[in-house]
Amino acid sequence: MQAKTRHVSNTVIRRLPIYLRYLQELNRLGVETVSSQEMGRDLDINPAQIRKDLAYFGEFGRKGIGYNVPYLIAKICQILKLDRSIPVALVGAGHLGIALSNYNRLRQEQLSIAAIFDKDPSKLGMKVADLVVEPVDRLPDRVKERGIRIGIVAVPAPEAQGVADLMVRSGIRAILNFAPATLRVPDDVHIRYSDVTSELQALAYYVD
Amino acid sequence: MQAKTRHVSNTVIRRLPIYLRYLQELNRLGVETVSSQEMGRDLDINPAQIRKDLAYFGEFGRKGIGYNVPYLIAKICQILKLDRSIPVALVGAGHLGIALSNYNRLRQEQLSIAAIFDKDPSKLGMKVADLVVEPVDRLPDRVKERGIRIGIVAVPAPEAQGVADLMVRSGIRAILNFAPATLRVPDDVHIRYSDVTSELQALAYYVD
Repeated sequence: MQAKTRHVSNTVIRRLPIYLRYLQELNRLGVETVSSQEMGRDLDINPAQIRKDLAYFGEFGRKGIGYNVPYLIAKICQILKLDRSIPVALVGAGHLGIALSNYNRLRQEQLSIAAIFDKDPSKLGMKVADLVVEPVDRLPDRVKERGIRIGIVAVPAPEAQGVADLMVRSGIRAILNFAPATLRVPDDVHIRYSDVTSELQALAYYVD
Repeated sequence: MQAKTRHVSNTVIRRLPIYLRYLQELNRLGVETVSSQEMGRDLDINPAQIRKDLAYFGEFGRKGIGYNVPYLIAKICQILKLDRSIPVALVGAGHLGIALSNYNRLRQEQLSIAAIFDKDPSKLGMKVADLVVEPVDRLPDRVKERGIRIGIVAVPAPEAQGVADLMVRSGIRAILNFAPATLRVPDDVHIRYSDVTSELQALAYYVD
């Protein structure tokens, strides 16, 4: 059965990595099949939603049997383009940048930080997770040389827009922003926010 | 008009902090009213979705005029319980934990990190953002003493479940997890994941 090609919303795309992580855990535990009911229960997502999300891309499950875990992992990786290596540039070599770099190296994912930048002269030349911190004005060259496709903004809020602008000018079209600031980017650039304050604020709702 | 009391999904709650941050920026710029169309355009969210999300809690806008910015800020803060101080416990004093603590202190939000823990003896007594790192077995006592309501897990993945279990036993009912691991918690505990790998994976979809 052929995958459908209609537009898929950000919200659906955002859930695919959650499914993937869960399926990879099942796989490590030797689980071979999983139903949308079981997935829904473990992930606290409506099973009908899970079936609908996956159906955007093809028919991966069998009624009454469920999904084959290794097969679904391979399919989601393919959808998310994780079947190839995507180099990432990180700007900001503070505690957050270092944590992200170390974490990324440990995980050895297809998405690997290929260059790290900072504007602070005292940080230049510092070694972080096998990379050397470079001045931020090297970003455009490195993007071209290393085929960098994604940028991570890990600088203080007042500097974030400038870094995003430089990334866009360098040809990056996907940005993950950790700075607590709303950034303006052209329509063809995808931006995602990872904002601890927002995460905590959403949790506060559930505090009694 | 009275606020509706029906069940509101996690997805709606998650968008409220995004609206809030945006409105606070408008407020700083002196903007007094905003339409759902303008909000939708700036935030890349369907305006009908924004109107529907806010309508769960009451009628805050006026047709043809839009929302009053300071009023909507106050209302969203009230919905999210940000009109009072909520103490947070952080477990894990590595680079990520330090970045989170510094960031939190700078922001001076109602959600403030009130205690920081680690199991590594070499980190105990270390000063992080005006707090002193304490052994993790002090967590239950500190939760009681300081009225801590939210826990942040910033430890490596293999330790995350143990930390979450301890938080739950201590009475915490809302957890923000940074470890790349799916955690099992009782039904009455709300957990949110902040997983860089998942964020990057969702962005990879948009890379051409």
